[in-house]
Amino acid sequence: MNGFEKTRELVEAIARTGRAERGVSRLALTESDREARAIAVSEMESLGMTVRTDACCNIWAEYPGTSDQPGVVIGSHLDSVPEGGDYDGVLGVCAGLGVVRDILAENPHPARSLSVVVFTSEESSRFSLATIGSKAATGNLTTMDTLRFKDKNGTTLLKALRDFGGQPEYLCRDALAPASYHSYFELHIEQGPVLDWNSEDVGIVEAIAAPTRFMLDIQGEQAHSGACPMNLRHDALTAAAEIILAVERAGRAESDFGTVATVGVCECRPGAMNVVPGRVTLKVDIRGIVEKSIARAYNDVMEKVKKVCAERGVTCNFTLYSADKPVAMDGLLARRVEKSCRELGVKYRRMPSGAGHDAMYMATLIPSALIFVPCKDGVSHSPAETIDWERVRPGYDVLLNTVRGIVM
Amino acid sequence: MNGFEKTRELVEAIARTGRAERGVSRLALTESDREARAIAVSEMESLGMTVRTDACCNIWAEYPGTSDQPGVVIGSHLDSVPEGGDYDGVLGVCAGLGVVRDILAENPHPARSLSVVVFTSEESSRFSLATIGSKAATGNLTTMDTLRFKDKNGTTLLKALRDFGGQPEYLCRDALAPASYHSYFELHIEQGPVLDWNSEDVGIVEAIAAPTRFMLDIQGEQAHSGACPMNLRHDALTAAAEIILAVERAGRAESDFGTVATVGVCECRPGAMNVVPGRVTLKVDIRGIVEKSIARAYNDVMEKVKKVCAERGVTCNFTLYSADKPVAMDGLLARRVEKSCRELGVKYRRMPSGAGHDAMYMATLIPSALIFVPCKDGVSHSPAETIDWERVRPGYDVLLNTVRGIVM
Repeated sequence: MNGFEKTRELVEAIARTGRAERGVSRLALTESDREARAIAVSEMESLGMTVRTDACCNIWAEYPGTSDQPGVVIGSHLDSVPEGGDYDGVLGVCAGLGVVRDILAENPHPARSLSVVVFTSEESSRFSLATIGSKAATGNLTTMDTLRFKDKNGTTLLKALRDFGGQPEYLCRDALAPASYHSYFELHIEQGPVLDWNSEDVGIVEAIAAPTRFMLDIQGEQAHSGACPMNLRHDALTAAAEIILAVERAGRAESDFGTVATVGVCECRPGAMNVVPGRVTLKVDIRGIVEKSIARAYNDVMEKVKKVCAERGVTCNFTLYSADKPVAMDGLLARRVEKSCRELGVKYRRMPSGAGHDAMYMATLIPSALIFVPCKDGVSHSPAETIDWERVRPGYDVLLNTVRGIVM
Repeated sequence: MNGFEKTRELVEAIARTGRAERGVSRLALTESDREARAIAVSEMESLGMTVRTDACCNIWAEYPGTSDQPGVVIGSHLDSVPEGGDYDGVLGVCAGLGVVRDILAENPHPARSLSVVVFTSEESSRFSLATIGSKAATGNLTTMDTLRFKDKNGTTLLKALRDFGGQPEYLCRDALAPASYHSYFELHIEQGPVLDWNSEDVGIVEAIAAPTRFMLDIQGEQAHSGACPMNLRHDALTAAAEIILAVERAGRAESDFGTVATVGVCECRPGAMNVVPGRVTLKVDIRGIVEKSIARAYNDVMEKVKKVCAERGVTCNFTLYSADKPVAMDGLLARRVEKSCRELGVKYRRMPSGAGHDAMYMATLIPSALIFVPCKDGVSHSPAETIDWERVRPGYDVLLNTVRGIVM
């Protein structure tokens, strides 16, 4: 079996773990995460790689090189959002293993070492914090942080890591040294429709948008839905509705810059049909690769929040979760990937990534490349996430060709 | 002790039953309901009234009149919502007992009989069905119905009634005969801010609004919040936001007719910060006392739903929960109450009731009057429900004066 066929076999095996009623729900550091990891580890071992789990439960598998020059690491994540798809993250890990298989089949003694990494909890679904593993591996997550973030049952990230076999108290000690790898590669489905709809097979990412995320906790006045006249209400939900639409407008106004703005969470209390809502919590996510555009969208939303509060006599608490800067990928590495595309005759485009990826943090320490392959209609984080394997093959070949050129 | 002082004493005694961490949680047909009823029954007996419990556990206490002309019945309910207040319902039962006390002190041989009724489960909190006792007493609840409705533990209304000492299989046999009473009176806190904020002490209810209630289940397309461009989204939450605001606009446009419109429930799925919501469920409650106005508000909302679906490429399922007609109170009785207000120099207003009450069903058989007294800021169904007893006194006096005029 060649590396590409193996990639597909592994993806399909992992897709059977964490199966939910709709799609796959493989939240980080749960039993189904463990099952998925076991499949990857089994392949790592059968490739003769040395497997190590770090303090943050990231899995690092290495096949040694004949020289002591820094090697190449390929990876992504295996956790999913609730009711997510089969390919987000999983494809990147499995393609890494496929590439190692293909290269070793050609030459079992590569000059540089070949590694595959599985990062812990790339999705923010469980702990409201994204790219946990790659943050930790690059020294961007402290033990204190693991105490601050909790899942919806109140379990801290620290406890979840410890229960899973990690050592959250040694996070910093276990971070990567800057020159430990020559380069990091991540193959990922685009999660947007650009490649699919333009009949292109590879996206070479130039920069990753970083999310500005915040919570708006709107307090109005709970009242009887029958007895409180319209003009005396301070309805937290109608106030929230204005803000939800303002977030959308802000995103639309900046869409020429690739900025997007989303309200993904809306919780309404007390949530009874006969009660005017007294409190609504919104969680907002604004992303882009142009800082000024992100700032404009953010300011538009915050101005609307102030206006709605004043006009409707409600109050709003604001909690900032993150306000990271967009991250550029390595220019030289991108050119190597581009060269592979040309050599192999693959239709590609240079593009931004709206979604965050582990490559964002790896790029802070190691030259990194993020390669997109198309997924059907760009649908992701959804049970409807699908790929056409024949349109994934060019991206796989580009990854293989580029990595081969470095390690051989 | 006069009747008004006794009313206050009884309300305070009953408020000590069903005490919860926040407010009072005296769900229907529970132990705390039984404790509250025992306090009322003890007062009924000490007034020399004959106490009878009907098939639906409604308590009917009667003091005979010297003539055989139909008498007056005053009443309300003793059950509460979870974390409710001390006065909703309780005040009406206790004021009835106070009025009987005052009238008997003046004349122990009234011409007409004087009755006080405690209706079972006026609140829908336990069985998702409101005004159970008054529905049963007026022939609007069948034994089959008591099998259909269950509490959250799966206990049927039938079993709960039977365990409490009722005879749900004899509901129909035990309904009131149409001419059994001359009139029904209910004193109730307004549960809205109109009286309090207008410094008026009595509201004479002309009609009780009946809710038109429905669910809108909006299906959009779940997508990645970073990777899906704004112009390719089918966001169920922004579609819902437009509908939420349309419901508010429809209510505001009809507010001259006393119509109100509320979205009390908004559930957003999957509810993750990094996912464009694919599905939102809204529950809408429209109420009024003018049928045409309710219909206009409803049509406005439904037109907006259609428009939003077409413009945004989302779909919407509709489920109707109820579409009852408003119930008018007795016009002659309202004029008697109004006359009492003038005689006593009480500031009053004629008004609709947005909330449902037992009077709504009693009015289907017996001429009924519903008298509102102010509660602080209109807050009700909340631990913060408060009354100023000095602002309740005028309403009590109006009730006493009106009933005295009928029975003496």
